[in-house]
Amino acid sequence: MSTDDLHALFNPKSIALVGVPRGFKAGAMFMLGLVDQGFAGPIYPVHPHATEIGGLRAYPRLIDVPDPVDMVIVLTPREAVWSILDQCAAKKVKVVVLYTSGYGETGEDKGREEEKRMRQSARNGDFRILGPNCMGVYSPASGLAFFPGMPRTPGDLGFISQSGSIGNLFTGIAAQRKVFFRHVVSYGNASDIGLPELISYMGDDPEVRVICSYCEGVRDGKALIEAFRGIGGSKPIIMWKVGTTEAGRKAAASHTGSMSGRERIWEAVFRKHGIIEVSDIEELLDAVMAFYHLPLETRGRVVIVSGPGGPAVSAADTIQKCGLEPASLGEQTIQKLKTILPATGTSLRNPIDVGLSATFDLRLYLDSLDAIAQDKNVDAIVILGRGASREMNEQYVESLIRAGKSSGKAIIAIAFPGMLTEEELLEPLYEAGIPVYPTPERAIRAYAKLWRFHRFRSRE
Amino acid sequence: MSTDDLHALFNPKSIALVGVPRGFKAGAMFMLGLVDQGFAGPIYPVHPHATEIGGLRAYPRLIDVPDPVDMVIVLTPREAVWSILDQCAAKKVKVVVLYTSGYGETGEDKGREEEKRMRQSARNGDFRILGPNCMGVYSPASGLAFFPGMPRTPGDLGFISQSGSIGNLFTGIAAQRKVFFRHVVSYGNASDIGLPELISYMGDDPEVRVICSYCEGVRDGKALIEAFRGIGGSKPIIMWKVGTTEAGRKAAASHTGSMSGRERIWEAVFRKHGIIEVSDIEELLDAVMAFYHLPLETRGRVVIVSGPGGPAVSAADTIQKCGLEPASLGEQTIQKLKTILPATGTSLRNPIDVGLSATFDLRLYLDSLDAIAQDKNVDAIVILGRGASREMNEQYVESLIRAGKSSGKAIIAIAFPGMLTEEELLEPLYEAGIPVYPTPERAIRAYAKLWRFHRFRSRE
Repeated sequence: MSTDDLHALFNPKSIALVGVPRGFKAGAMFMLGLVDQGFAGPIYPVHPHATEIGGLRAYPRLIDVPDPVDMVIVLTPREAVWSILDQCAAKKVKVVVLYTSGYGETGEDKGREEEKRMRQSARNGDFRILGPNCMGVYSPASGLAFFPGMPRTPGDLGFISQSGSIGNLFTGIAAQRKVFFRHVVSYGNASDIGLPELISYMGDDPEVRVICSYCEGVRDGKALIEAFRGIGGSKPIIMWKVGTTEAGRKAAASHTGSMSGRERIWEAVFRKHGIIEVSDIEELLDAVMAFYHLPLETRGRVVIVSGPGGPAVSAADTIQKCGLEPASLGEQTIQKLKTILPATGTSLRNPIDVGLSATFDLRLYLDSLDAIAQDKNVDAIVILGRGASREMNEQYVESLIRAGKSSGKAIIAIAFPGMLTEEELLEPLYEAGIPVYPTPERAIRAYAKLWRFHRFRSRE
Repeated sequence: MSTDDLHALFNPKSIALVGVPRGFKAGAMFMLGLVDQGFAGPIYPVHPHATEIGGLRAYPRLIDVPDPVDMVIVLTPREAVWSILDQCAAKKVKVVVLYTSGYGETGEDKGREEEKRMRQSARNGDFRILGPNCMGVYSPASGLAFFPGMPRTPGDLGFISQSGSIGNLFTGIAAQRKVFFRHVVSYGNASDIGLPELISYMGDDPEVRVICSYCEGVRDGKALIEAFRGIGGSKPIIMWKVGTTEAGRKAAASHTGSMSGRERIWEAVFRKHGIIEVSDIEELLDAVMAFYHLPLETRGRVVIVSGPGGPAVSAADTIQKCGLEPASLGEQTIQKLKTILPATGTSLRNPIDVGLSATFDLRLYLDSLDAIAQDKNVDAIVILGRGASREMNEQYVESLIRAGKSSGKAIIAIAFPGMLTEEELLEPLYEAGIPVYPTPERAIRAYAKLWRFHRFRSRE
């Protein structure tokens, strides 16, 4: 199967929605999402009785739509699905997105058999199926969305999520951090199109730079390994694999009917193919921010620059626990720092403690940062600070951006709980490729993932 | 040494501040903090030239203050410290808070020897020293604070922090979650008063219910073990111990001159004495919220109730990874849920998936919650949901509070990234003893700590 097959899934020219409800119900969101995202092609709502829904002409059955339909989104109850699939074959539809649920995830044999039958009917009808029990595709460059209000800015992150809610929620929180998407695909029970094929598609798409995935299980482990091998470290793949415990496996089975597999097997596969593993949505976001915003080339030499001393000690622990190297500053840098920082209440050894008074005298932060950014023994600077007023915080943010631009180094800002609380001040940082983390520990763990991936890739 | 010695540290009747700077400098914050917190006794600024600072009469030297002084806060450079300590003895001061730094944390023998000499001069002068290199005490019931703007509401959490910044920052973020403090003490280099004695003091104080601590190292490990043994599980003690790696040890040495000790020794001590261990500020906050807000009695049987299915699968994994038990609902509860929830897109097995449409029809959440809260096989309910509008979110929050009150069970709310984003809606939850976490994984890890502590205590 070639990845060309999936072209219509991400670039449909026309879409029919079958079973669009009238009124404020979950199903209505899908059509509103396409309209809101500015889908350029025709949209055909299909409804047994309505002649018009949301200002668009409605048709009683799919086969009544007079023009060609690339994608069909099915929102009906299960009873209607088989007839619709027959009509899809008749209309030479290219891809079907099945929102409808109640199949493999019920735990009943009937559900699993129906999924097999679906796959067969897709083969026979020469179309592809995404789902059932999925939310479809968000792809701002193609005008596709699950819901209204999803960001319209396209980016180069690809997200393959077995859970639609996570696909949707993650898109929103990533966008706040200036991480934007080429595609997000929610693939649910994976009766036909599954993770391996989607990974390969994103691997082939030159507009995708980083791939991430939330996965409950795969039917064909060998195909997944093949997909990983095909990408071979050319793009980072970040995986949030759940269902790794007995309790989680049961939950995955009743969510998307997935067979989750054993934790150790997954770990071994991930290690062999340089896959970056995360275990919750915060860790996913942390890793994505690092890979999206920071330079991939690194020797992993990190400096901590901090006003408060306590968080810096814990940060130093984390550097070592993650296997990163605390950067040793060059003699010239240390001499420069001696002229900048007061002799007491500070430390010139990494972690650099600029002292409590830096909050009142920003130059202590900013001149130190400039000196350190010039040091060739340093790859990344994790900086934890703030000013004593909003105006000083603005100046602080501007200086981080300047240091990042002039040095080309990875600058990572920490908005420690209670510090740099003005969300709107952080936006320019993200825009300048400076990710912001709530704690140095989270920043360092994410940076260690980037460094391990770089080492994996260099070994290839 | 009796903990009576420390009474004046937390309850001084009068305070002198030596070396209060004029103008907008870090040192000025300490006096403003006492005024802002409404300290009831007299405050005496001491300054060589000023006759008045911030509206208070100033004195040239400490011995020039005409009335008795319980506590002296020293903000001067190092050179002035010895003469001040002599004056403290002459004036029969009870406790000295030494903000001044440049001692053991410099890494030089001289600094360490000076700390010894300080300790000796405290013995000779019959006073106690907190610090050097510390921020002192925040204790709203006594009108003490490091800084202006610290919360005025007293609570029953005690925080013993070797780092002043962490003490200060944590106080702010905890208060946002309706976690309030009896005392926060920043003890710095611990030349005299150290962690063991402070732990014992908080253990004896009937107004302290939960103790937490950020610690870089202790001089006297045996004394700490004695202090733990003295408390013997009667109060939870949550420890964030840093400096556990070589890099962290170096950082701790140059922050507070601490000898950090080996990670494994600490772990063994913690396990033996039922100490709850955390490793960053988020984990500290998560644990503190659980111990502060939730009932300590539990058999660890947790139910997940979720609208989005994906986070629920990961939550189930976490329950098992933490050694908690996924609660098995009683047959009666399952029958009730069958009448409440639609047959497809939902799951009646823990994790309970109420389906995507619950966002539009809140009763699916709320009736399920009521049914589950009545189940005697359940100790804690972790609920991840929201409504489709602000008004629905208000109703959702009210119902959680009602379910918590009527059942007496632990209710834990999840404001998943992108969901329940209205901060002000969460306040009533905290007020009702319902902690809110950003992810189910973090909530469950915190709850597992509470459950392990309960088991430890029951075994005693």
